[in-house]
Amino acid sequence: MSEIAHLGPVELLTPKAEESLAFFVDVLGMEIEARDGASVYLRGWGDYQRFSLKLTESDTSGMAVLGLRAWSQEALERRVAAVEAAGLGEGWTDGDLGRGPSYRFRDPDGHVFELYFEVERYKAPEHLRPSLKNQPQRYVGRGCAVKRLDHVNVLAADVRPNREFAVDALGYRLYERVELEDGTESGAWMSASIAAHELIYTSDAYKAHGRLHHLAFWVDTREEVLRAADLFIEHDVHIEAAPSKHAIAQGFFLYGYEPGGNRIEVTTGGYFVYDPEQPAVVWNEAERKLGQAWRVKTVDTFHTYGTPPVE
Amino acid sequence: MSEIAHLGPVELLTPKAEESLAFFVDVLGMEIEARDGASVYLRGWGDYQRFSLKLTESDTSGMAVLGLRAWSQEALERRVAAVEAAGLGEGWTDGDLGRGPSYRFRDPDGHVFELYFEVERYKAPEHLRPSLKNQPQRYVGRGCAVKRLDHVNVLAADVRPNREFAVDALGYRLYERVELEDGTESGAWMSASIAAHELIYTSDAYKAHGRLHHLAFWVDTREEVLRAADLFIEHDVHIEAAPSKHAIAQGFFLYGYEPGGNRIEVTTGGYFVYDPEQPAVVWNEAERKLGQAWRVKTVDTFHTYGTPPVE
Amino acid sequence: MSEIAHLGPVELLTPKAEESLAFFVDVLGMEIEARDGASVYLRGWGDYQRFSLKLTESDTSGMAVLGLRAWSQEALERRVAAVEAAGLGEGWTDGDLGRGPSYRFRDPDGHVFELYFEVERYKAPEHLRPSLKNQPQRYVGRGCAVKRLDHVNVLAADVRPNREFAVDALGYRLYERVELEDGTESGAWMSASIAAHELIYTSDAYKAHGRLHHLAFWVDTREEVLRAADLFIEHDVHIEAAPSKHAIAQGFFLYGYEPGGNRIEVTTGGYFVYDPEQPAVVWNEAERKLGQAWRVKTVDTFHTYGTPPVE
Amino acid sequence: MSEIAHLGPVELLTPKAEESLAFFVDVLGMEIEARDGASVYLRGWGDYQRFSLKLTESDTSGMAVLGLRAWSQEALERRVAAVEAAGLGEGWTDGDLGRGPSYRFRDPDGHVFELYFEVERYKAPEHLRPSLKNQPQRYVGRGCAVKRLDHVNVLAADVRPNREFAVDALGYRLYERVELEDGTESGAWMSASIAAHELIYTSDAYKAHGRLHHLAFWVDTREEVLRAADLFIEHDVHIEAAPSKHAIAQGFFLYGYEPGGNRIEVTTGGYFVYDPEQPAVVWNEAERKLGQAWRVKTVDTFHTYGTPPVE
Repeated sequence: MSEIAHLGPVELLTPKAEESLAFFVDVLGMEIEARDGASVYLRGWGDYQRFSLKLTESDTSGMAVLGLRAWSQEALERRVAAVEAAGLGEGWTDGDLGRGPSYRFRDPDGHVFELYFEVERYKAPEHLRPSLKNQPQRYVGRGCAVKRLDHVNVLAADVRPNREFAVDALGYRLYERVELEDGTESGAWMSASIAAHELIYTSDAYKAHGRLHHLAFWVDTREEVLRAADLFIEHDVHIEAAPSKHAIAQGFFLYGYEPGGNRIEVTTGGYFVYDPEQPAVVWNEAERKLGQAWRVKTVDTFHTYGTPPVE
Repeated sequence: MSEIAHLGPVELLTPKAEESLAFFVDVLGMEIEARDGASVYLRGWGDYQRFSLKLTESDTSGMAVLGLRAWSQEALERRVAAVEAAGLGEGWTDGDLGRGPSYRFRDPDGHVFELYFEVERYKAPEHLRPSLKNQPQRYVGRGCAVKRLDHVNVLAADVRPNREFAVDALGYRLYERVELEDGTESGAWMSASIAAHELIYTSDAYKAHGRLHHLAFWVDTREEVLRAADLFIEHDVHIEAAPSKHAIAQGFFLYGYEPGGNRIEVTTGGYFVYDPEQPAVVWNEAERKLGQAWRVKTVDTFHTYGTPPVE
Repeated sequence: MSEIAHLGPVELLTPKAEESLAFFVDVLGMEIEARDGASVYLRGWGDYQRFSLKLTESDTSGMAVLGLRAWSQEALERRVAAVEAAGLGEGWTDGDLGRGPSYRFRDPDGHVFELYFEVERYKAPEHLRPSLKNQPQRYVGRGCAVKRLDHVNVLAADVRPNREFAVDALGYRLYERVELEDGTESGAWMSASIAAHELIYTSDAYKAHGRLHHLAFWVDTREEVLRAADLFIEHDVHIEAAPSKHAIAQGFFLYGYEPGGNRIEVTTGGYFVYDPEQPAVVWNEAERKLGQAWRVKTVDTFHTYGTPPVE
Repeated sequence: MSEIAHLGPVELLTPKAEESLAFFVDVLGMEIEARDGASVYLRGWGDYQRFSLKLTESDTSGMAVLGLRAWSQEALERRVAAVEAAGLGEGWTDGDLGRGPSYRFRDPDGHVFELYFEVERYKAPEHLRPSLKNQPQRYVGRGCAVKRLDHVNVLAADVRPNREFAVDALGYRLYERVELEDGTESGAWMSASIAAHELIYTSDAYKAHGRLHHLAFWVDTREEVLRAADLFIEHDVHIEAAPSKHAIAQGFFLYGYEPGGNRIEVTTGGYFVYDPEQPAVVWNEAERKLGQAWRVKTVDTFHTYGTPPVE
């Protein structure tokens, strides 16, 4: 039981604001919930908060801030204390649209996070009112019709201290990791819930800091991932990796680059972790060389490309 | 954050031991993990414990015991104290195959539960060793190939006190419930995780006590539920409700009766609850009369049939 | 080998032109290819002709004309001769948008058909140009995104003579039929191809003439039919029968009423008939009482409702 | 309208009879219908004939004979005359299990075919009797549970004359082909029905003669192809190409090698060709370099590997 309820919203930077917005609205099928200056707030039809993605125009790409909602006010305070004890805290902010006081900090690699508890629940306007009252918003079905933000994969020059910080200070549970022959930890899959991954760290091939590997948005079925690939092609979205199944975490994926350059995944599947004593699965180098679940070799860029670009 | 990790294993009684066993092995596709006297221990390919179903020959049908695993030894002790404080405790047992000391109690309606923490993790024999090391067992694909026990729906003469007990003493979270015009609570959907339902109470039409509505086994896709319906028909399993989508919890279902008379569901889908402050959705009588998600009227027996049969 | 290549386009009447058009464009996801007076010509993304549905404003509902394309000019002439020999011909017309000279006739029940061969193939405008050149149009993915017209089910006061005419004069192959205990033929499923049904006759409960049971539009997967049900609900489309599997022809279906009152099916699945000597499957009354493939009882209106309404 | 009803049965050679048989029975899920000497006759649950695959022990791999059923006795005679006129006929044989007199010939590349009309329809034994009478056999659901043989892809040192022979003498329709910059035809996709491909010729990288590229077996859904990949992995079947979508013919595929070395596809999807005047789609070299439908680069062996192996 983690004291983190879930991650998100996430703020994403794009040097091509208009094209990126068109991608998230027309291709991914998200709704514009609000606008503020250079930012547009976007949501999937299953997000209970007002938004899960804040898209901000910038001179570069990458992730600006990753929100983490605590389970309670007390949980928030305990996590803030732990972060401060780790010497990584930066202090309280007023929060953002739809959320209250937030505590800003950086992970060892330099990514910016904000911990918070108070939120505003989403209220659908008339044209987005759902037919089923246990659903936050109408299912419009536009584009890929992603349901919600699912997980975030960040890059780190050195994975291990970031994983340790996430586990020790934030309370994430480690479900899977990769350890190379030289002892380097090249990836760590963590979760605050029974879902097999929510926060992922993988090695930055350039040893750069604070970069993003990808944001993943959820759909309920593998068929929707396959359909998403058709939509990506029809919208000239660059597909980096066509739909298939990961060995690690067993998620079903489609990876493409949004116009601003950030890697976006449409995802579903994976397994649930019900065992409170679940031991972390450790993959070695030989096992990783077998490829993904169905022996597909991962495309090279998947191990090197991140945002913002490296000079 | 509940202190219950998950429910199960469940002990199910059957007056037709051989036919019921054939159903769970050949139709649902479970594996026999062990046998002991009149009982056979069965597992899905995704169960991390040795088994999730104990099938026991008896002169009647219904549920004998529902296990509940606590998150930790301390959580177990706190839950036991809460149950004892509610005056419903019956005392410690030695547990069962693959699990340690267990605390036996009854819910207000009379169903028997056992709370425990210590378990033995499953180790696959050679012929059931999986190709992916993050999976407990090989995917054999026999029959419906259910992955694991997902949720349990019990009947209660009076739902409300049972729901209150589950929330207050056990720490379940209430996600949805039905309240009739006369104020009666006719159903309550609760969970210890982000899954939309794990423990369900619905009204017993006969005001009988301790009866079972159904056990639900998980598959990963809706296509597998549709395929399960084909297999049910080919195996002469009585289908009570063909595949469709529930309004409540939005689960995708197939209901049939196993040879011993117990109602079994093959299920997938539903939504995840990430909001720690999630308010319970309350459905009224008029809303329930609209039928299921796609306006299918539920077959009458679904509201009356349970096991063991009422005299 | 029938001399009919396929059926369609079909002309459908609606007393609610605007709402019906919104249904076919926004919910079914068809494109407007042309307009002419009180008619709008609509197409699915997989139609090779310019359109498969001509929607015409009228004071009532129902089917105005069903097109049948012959395999060749010679096949057309032979079929026309056969129709004339049956005494049901009405003569040549100039055709319609995108098709040449057409021979008009009525089946014994009175439905109007037009036989033709010459057509104009669809050329996609820039914004609908597909990424794959073996596809007539871009997959836009709007609404149910139906691919093409699949089959048509008309009602007849007496099924048998219509089935005999379709087989003898038009050259359809009979794959399945229902024969009641009194010898009445209550349904006949015919095809001009390996697809299990294209032209269906079922009994008109009111012994009325020339009425329509439903038009069926194809999607490639069962998941899209399930998704269509979600979209129907969100758009307040009346669902008459939620997704399930027919026993006859084994098609997977969703039935709803478009705003003009006509029954529309979203369909996929079924089997292919590769045997040139395939004997027709004959279902008797007892077998039909078992319900659909998964023992779902068909809703009563399915056996009585048709368009236009009976006085 | 071709005068060929469909292809199959196919006789496949294997140097590892026992392992190959286990693959077709346990992994693909076919039934053994008969045995005769070194051959085992196998069927999918949807095959209307007694079998679609004859597996024969041999000192090598590859395809021995490909059957082609004519639409009628007259069609058979016309096709035999056309084959004889092309100078490729070898004469009549007594046929094989479940089929009558057959006319043996070779295509220009040297593959052996047999044309026939008379067949014995399959009658299911008690334990394989289906619940739906419009289905030849019970759906058992074992392994990949392939429904029937779908298409065959043979290799040819020179594709063009073989394609011309198939179109001119056999009456196949050409739906798609690839033409390289030097004018070479490197692939041709043909069909005798509305299905997008049944008989395929592609270039033999070694300019060898009479080799097989792959046999494809049909399943009804893409989800079953994904499930088949899980089963291949769990059974240690070599996956050459994980599930994805072809650009040509748009089929959804999974390719693996059966123990005897022959490439086997599990397939579904694709489009239907309803236009009797359908022009063949011609792909050029640049278009093929884009990869498959979702820009997956085809693995190199797919363009070189065939059976029997080249010395």
